[in-house]
Amino acid sequence: MANGIIDPLRRADGVKVVDATLRDGGIVNNFYFPEGFAEALYAADVAAGVDVIEFGYKVSKKLFGRDGFGKWKFCGEDDIRAVVGGKDAAVKIAVMADVGRVDLREEMLPKSQSVIDIYRIAAYCSQIAEAAEMIEYAGKMGYFTTCNIMAISKNDISEVRAALETVARTPADVIYIVDSFGSLSPDDIKRLCDLYGEIAYKYGKKLGIHAHNNLQLAFANTLAAYGAGVEYLDATICGMGRGAGNCPLEALIGYLRNPRYSILPVLKFIRGHMMPLRESGVEWGYDVPYLLTGLENVHPYAAIDFLKAGRNDYAAFLGEIAESKKR
Amino acid sequence: MANGIIDPLRRADGVKVVDATLRDGGIVNNFYFPEGFAEALYAADVAAGVDVIEFGYKVSKKLFGRDGFGKWKFCGEDDIRAVVGGKDAAVKIAVMADVGRVDLREEMLPKSQSVIDIYRIAAYCSQIAEAAEMIEYAGKMGYFTTCNIMAISKNDISEVRAALETVARTPADVIYIVDSFGSLSPDDIKRLCDLYGEIAYKYGKKLGIHAHNNLQLAFANTLAAYGAGVEYLDATICGMGRGAGNCPLEALIGYLRNPRYSILPVLKFIRGHMMPLRESGVEWGYDVPYLLTGLENVHPYAAIDFLKAGRNDYAAFLGEIAESKKR
Repeated sequence: MANGIIDPLRRADGVKVVDATLRDGGIVNNFYFPEGFAEALYAADVAAGVDVIEFGYKVSKKLFGRDGFGKWKFCGEDDIRAVVGGKDAAVKIAVMADVGRVDLREEMLPKSQSVIDIYRIAAYCSQIAEAAEMIEYAGKMGYFTTCNIMAISKNDISEVRAALETVARTPADVIYIVDSFGSLSPDDIKRLCDLYGEIAYKYGKKLGIHAHNNLQLAFANTLAAYGAGVEYLDATICGMGRGAGNCPLEALIGYLRNPRYSILPVLKFIRGHMMPLRESGVEWGYDVPYLLTGLENVHPYAAIDFLKAGRNDYAAFLGEIAESKKR
Repeated sequence: MANGIIDPLRRADGVKVVDATLRDGGIVNNFYFPEGFAEALYAADVAAGVDVIEFGYKVSKKLFGRDGFGKWKFCGEDDIRAVVGGKDAAVKIAVMADVGRVDLREEMLPKSQSVIDIYRIAAYCSQIAEAAEMIEYAGKMGYFTTCNIMAISKNDISEVRAALETVARTPADVIYIVDSFGSLSPDDIKRLCDLYGEIAYKYGKKLGIHAHNNLQLAFANTLAAYGAGVEYLDATICGMGRGAGNCPLEALIGYLRNPRYSILPVLKFIRGHMMPLRESGVEWGYDVPYLLTGLENVHPYAAIDFLKAGRNDYAAFLGEIAESKKR
């Protein structure tokens, strides 16, 4: 045991830091990032030693018009290639595909023709059969896949267990614990790591964690998962993401003290690109209304609307949430 | 075990929520709170079921001129009485006294003549002998006492252990784990709970936790202590406190789900008093420079100066911290 109060020991092996800034951050600004932002982020992630960078979503262009969204809503092959060039870096490239929002048969190239490495398939428990089909297809097309089961804080353990049993039988490489509503505590995460691990490890799957900051617990929940052996750790720079945002990548890399990672390129990116983004009026991060939706275990959109409306009558808002849960 | 993903069970007994807004928050604005702020805070804490409200510091008027500070730097008996009136409420009234900054023989009334219930004696490990004398004196004068051992993240375990052995032999009722630099993680806190508990419980002492938010872990660290049986939980409304601030009281009360506490009066106080305070230009809370001083385990004053100077060259700042640690 160390003599100091702070234990400097960290798990050295099997950790992957996943930068989801463009994808989860893109939800904040409809993927309208400034010119050069994605290029600078990619360069920062390469220099920082980040393992995976998630560029955005694959969605059906039939369902979503190009007009209302920036390019990372669609992640066209050419758009990604324009950023990563020859892609000699070690960082893997991921995109997310939601069940019901994309037909992979139309939007996915065979891996040999694509610069994308990883498809992250996102689904609610109730959609897990469709997710399994998408994972099968992506696996056959040559991709590394993850399954991100969303909004589990609304499910019973039996429902999550059933979903896990289905996903575990697919070729998915990683199964993610996703705290969509930011309602979970480190103790909840530890119990979920046991539940997910019990099923996933039997089938040779890895685990991942994607946390939200409604209760100011995104970083703590990520550390709880890391401490329980979870390998894929999602984070975003400055925690940029929907509503209260995510685990800040700079905190995670700083904490890990792993020589594979360097915080300096991230700090330079924050100064050069994240601060101007904030100053341009793009808003995210912890605030009281997100605490309330997190505590009440409801989707954060109510809090996003509340803040957009310029309201601060928190007590009334709490009453509205309670009412909405009765319906 | 519950069927839901979120475990609703909470420890029901032996928890005390301590509102340190006026004291730790006062460090942010030199204790210049708006007219009526302390009265409204006291009323909100009473209505919310908060167990202890810390009004501020007791310091020697010889050492600190009245000019540069608001009244809660001094906590005059009459000033507190003007807020609490007849004090029929259950909430206990606390003040903090730092070793070396106050002569209790001059500033402390016998308990029978004072509205104050609790003296919190703050000291570094190296000052623990003087702290013990102050605790002895306050105990003899009839007060409930706590010992808040500061900046322990800079100490070796052996130094903390020696300090604990000294404090445990005083009449102190509570011994606090204090993360002055906001450098500790939930895992560190759990090990400290074991270390403190091993000595404190033998002597019939309770434990307390005072966390800072440099790593966005103040709430998580408070929950980690709570989970380990710590009874006195410090928090401040909106996390107001030096630098990155503290554990947000509204998050703590919301999480506890204990019918003794009500979040609504706190939410109303935030709207009526904390938001105007922020809008008036008083600044606190997590920011990248605090992350860096927290990760490097140094006092946050460097980050406070950095932000006051309007700087955002984080990478250079990190270099400066590293240099300062060599000196």
